[in-house]
Amino acid sequence: MMPESVDNGAHYSHAPHTVPIDDWITERAQEVDSYLQKMLPETSVEPLELHAAIRWASIGAGKRVRACMVYAAAQACQATLDTNVQQALHRAAAAVELIHAYSLIHDDLPCMDDDIMRRGKAATHIEFGEAMALLAGDAMQPLAFEGFSEMPVAPTLVVQAVRTLAMSIGSQGMAGGQAMDLLSTGGKLDEQVLAEMHAKKTGSLLAASAQLGAIIVGAGSAKRESLRTYSLAIGLAFQVVDDVLDVTAPSYQLGKTAGKDVVADKATYVSLLGVDSATALAKQLHQTACDATISFGRRGEHLRGLADFIVQRTY
Amino acid sequence: MMPESVDNGAHYSHAPHTVPIDDWITERAQEVDSYLQKMLPETSVEPLELHAAIRWASIGAGKRVRACMVYAAAQACQATLDTNVQQALHRAAAAVELIHAYSLIHDDLPCMDDDIMRRGKAATHIEFGEAMALLAGDAMQPLAFEGFSEMPVAPTLVVQAVRTLAMSIGSQGMAGGQAMDLLSTGGKLDEQVLAEMHAKKTGSLLAASAQLGAIIVGAGSAKRESLRTYSLAIGLAFQVVDDVLDVTAPSYQLGKTAGKDVVADKATYVSLLGVDSATALAKQLHQTACDATISFGRRGEHLRGLADFIVQRTY
Repeated sequence: MMPESVDNGAHYSHAPHTVPIDDWITERAQEVDSYLQKMLPETSVEPLELHAAIRWASIGAGKRVRACMVYAAAQACQATLDTNVQQALHRAAAAVELIHAYSLIHDDLPCMDDDIMRRGKAATHIEFGEAMALLAGDAMQPLAFEGFSEMPVAPTLVVQAVRTLAMSIGSQGMAGGQAMDLLSTGGKLDEQVLAEMHAKKTGSLLAASAQLGAIIVGAGSAKRESLRTYSLAIGLAFQVVDDVLDVTAPSYQLGKTAGKDVVADKATYVSLLGVDSATALAKQLHQTACDATISFGRRGEHLRGLADFIVQRTY
Repeated sequence: MMPESVDNGAHYSHAPHTVPIDDWITERAQEVDSYLQKMLPETSVEPLELHAAIRWASIGAGKRVRACMVYAAAQACQATLDTNVQQALHRAAAAVELIHAYSLIHDDLPCMDDDIMRRGKAATHIEFGEAMALLAGDAMQPLAFEGFSEMPVAPTLVVQAVRTLAMSIGSQGMAGGQAMDLLSTGGKLDEQVLAEMHAKKTGSLLAASAQLGAIIVGAGSAKRESLRTYSLAIGLAFQVVDDVLDVTAPSYQLGKTAGKDVVADKATYVSLLGVDSATALAKQLHQTACDATISFGRRGEHLRGLADFIVQRTY
């Protein structure tokens, strides 16, 4: 958009960004936030406290990587996105962010990670109590699926979208990964099991986000396969970077409690490989992800930019 | 099926049952149980403990009223149900039972009702620990929606089914009712607010179950409206009877802890109206429900039988 942004040299992506990726991510984050503002029940609607808790956990914070993945994947698959497709993408972006936010609420509960801080403010159960936090998370799952039912695209695509999201967050997806994580305390996992756990816990929703973008624009199987390779690599890279940041970044920078994996004696990429090798692994996964976007040509720029952002982030 | 069952006089329904309703309910319960046995991930699939917890909570117990509602509504709307429709009904029946079972898991958690007994055995969090119980519930919601995506009916009907279920269990449905229930401790609710709470907490999923049966057979709006009247009345009757049983039936008969509403000082129909008036209200709601089924003629027999069962049950 601005002349100086054609190539700012800050990213090692394969094609120059037309808009600096940080700006693009910020714009998408604002977009999904304003969409959530509109779609979520107001805090003046009963039950007031439940709706306040849902908004507390969903709006105004977060990197919105999953929402960006929806948009970036759709753009990679199709040059122009008409109004209906854009509306459907907003719903998908809001859905994956709602699901992510619900998983964070439940993850922070005393019986899980017992964390008091999230996204730079009090965790939902600290602000609203455990029971209300539990219910807020429970109510956010159906909100995501309800949004799907309003997508102005062919019903066959909506059904595919429902299936993709549902499978990615169930017992063999995100919730399954959380269960594996519970059992990992004590540092007994090897690298292969750790990768499988993260593929489920974090990778599956990220991969589903990319697939949702592709489904909504009706992309074919070759494009969807490239997106799968990309998103699984970037999902794992995301987690490796998380593990590194947990030991190298302070809490105020992360917006959540730092060092908690060490305290909980959890298996992490840092505990298995050390900081240097974990950082090298993240770079290698970044390369795999970017290679998978080559076939999209210039339209894959935001996928590559997201990959850069995820590996270079400091929070 | 058996001659003596043409009119056994045990029910005050408007049309005679061709099969005694208790037998019909038992058959439907076995049907949904065997479907859940097939559709749920095996306990030999990772994460083993999560899948064991899901099966513990979902299979082999429960009155299966919601599943029966799906089948009875479909039968009321359409005389013959072809194989595809039957398959879709099984998925819907399994879905509403999974949702109900997940809500019971979360409801029994220490931060909610803190109950140790459910359906005659240990509550899921007692058997598997709080964290695993939380995750089992979390994973059962998407399993329900995943099942919808496999329904062999027109995609537009699947989208309607997704929307109906999602709206019935969210912040203005089941989860919203749970939140209202949380705030009811101290007995401060009046009868109108109590009815609204139950309409959300119990009524909305029961009503959705009936609507799902109607949606799958492609029923029109008049039939769906009759079913809505029926199911909301029966949903409230269900709760009124629950409140009566809580003070009149022993725990071993209920399969859950009796008298807990009194201990928690919760507003109930018994605390507001007394046992006699609450029982009279249940009968009146039963009549409203049965009246709403008249237009279905003889095909509404199972709806009426279910209404009888719900009001006359002792557990």
